[in-house]
Amino acid sequence: MANHERGIETRNTLLDTSLALFSQNGYDATSVAQICQDAQVSKGAFYHHFASKQELFLALMDTWLDSVVGLFQTAGDSAETIPEALDQMAALSGGLFDALEGGFPILLEFWTQASRHPAVWEKAVAPYQRFLDYFAGMVQAGIDEGSFDPSVDPVKAARTLTSVAMGLLLQAIFEPDGAQWQAVTRSGIQLVIDGMRSKK
Amino acid sequence: MANHERGIETRNTLLDTSLALFSQNGYDATSVAQICQDAQVSKGAFYHHFASKQELFLALMDTWLDSVVGLFQTAGDSAETIPEALDQMAALSGGLFDALEGGFPILLEFWTQASRHPAVWEKAVAPYQRFLDYFAGMVQAGIDEGSFDPSVDPVKAARTLTSVAMGLLLQAIFEPDGAQWQAVTRSGIQLVIDGMRSKK
Repeated sequence: MANHERGIETRNTLLDTSLALFSQNGYDATSVAQICQDAQVSKGAFYHHFASKQELFLALMDTWLDSVVGLFQTAGDSAETIPEALDQMAALSGGLFDALEGGFPILLEFWTQASRHPAVWEKAVAPYQRFLDYFAGMVQAGIDEGSFDPSVDPVKAARTLTSVAMGLLLQAIFEPDGAQWQAVTRSGIQLVIDGMRSKK
Repeated sequence: MANHERGIETRNTLLDTSLALFSQNGYDATSVAQICQDAQVSKGAFYHHFASKQELFLALMDTWLDSVVGLFQTAGDSAETIPEALDQMAALSGGLFDALEGGFPILLEFWTQASRHPAVWEKAVAPYQRFLDYFAGMVQAGIDEGSFDPSVDPVKAARTLTSVAMGLLLQAIFEPDGAQWQAVTRSGIQLVIDGMRSKK
């Protein structure tokens, strides 16, 4: 194995190990020493890849965000109308919520850290703003194609769509077996879609 | 001051002090010793009121939940229709989000702890279920009075209403000055209300 490949493998091992530890014990209670021990990686190798525990944490978030953005793009591509695209996104996200395993409590941890540390907050707020803009653009496109009523405020509607997704994700973290999350998410987004529909 | 009154005052001081510390530094990073020091209360007095840090934490949540339930009851009382009652609740909650100060990041901390510790989870899931039942009952009443379409599923709609509230609360914690939260909350709940309206 080339050095380069071994480096990528070490980085991925550190990401996987820390995801498990952060999710289980929390960010504050997890030390670099413990991550290194569980990952069987030396401290020297750790700091070769990440300047700090916080930088590793932010890299985890980047990985997660990339996967969500990729998912949404796939969903939007095959739909013919905006309501259809939103429904497909809801189905995909809801399906993820049903499959909740170790990976999601880390989001709660991320939100907690972001509310507390400016460095995490700044890193977090840019992609979040990107999501809002993306959904506001979709709602505007829905108005333009005649699916949604012109009286709908695209920015406020984008906040509502985002909040349904965040709120259901939170409920799914909280109560993984509490509901069929895919069905609940589709039905929730559908209510908002119906609320936006052209009134004429 | 009678012993009894002094006891209540000590308990309230411990609640206020720990709320500030948990919100600022997190649950894990806050020790009983530091709470006692900041509150100027002895460890003996602390353990007279609370068996553990976790019990104090759960008492904070009880206080918070009581205030929210009280708020919702006030809102519902003066409304003539279910959509009106829901709008008034949205206005009240949204007003709270605008006034976010030290008190809300604690909720994130609570959700994080609940996702991790069965004792917190059990304490948390009962009132949460109560909220869901409450909103499902309101949606059913809205169908019965003819405001909402009979095809609406009250339980799923209750999850949607709750998720809009939770999601916007999360966004408001994240970005306190990012929007006029009262207006955004009313508009979000209004979209869901419009989505449920009678289709005939």
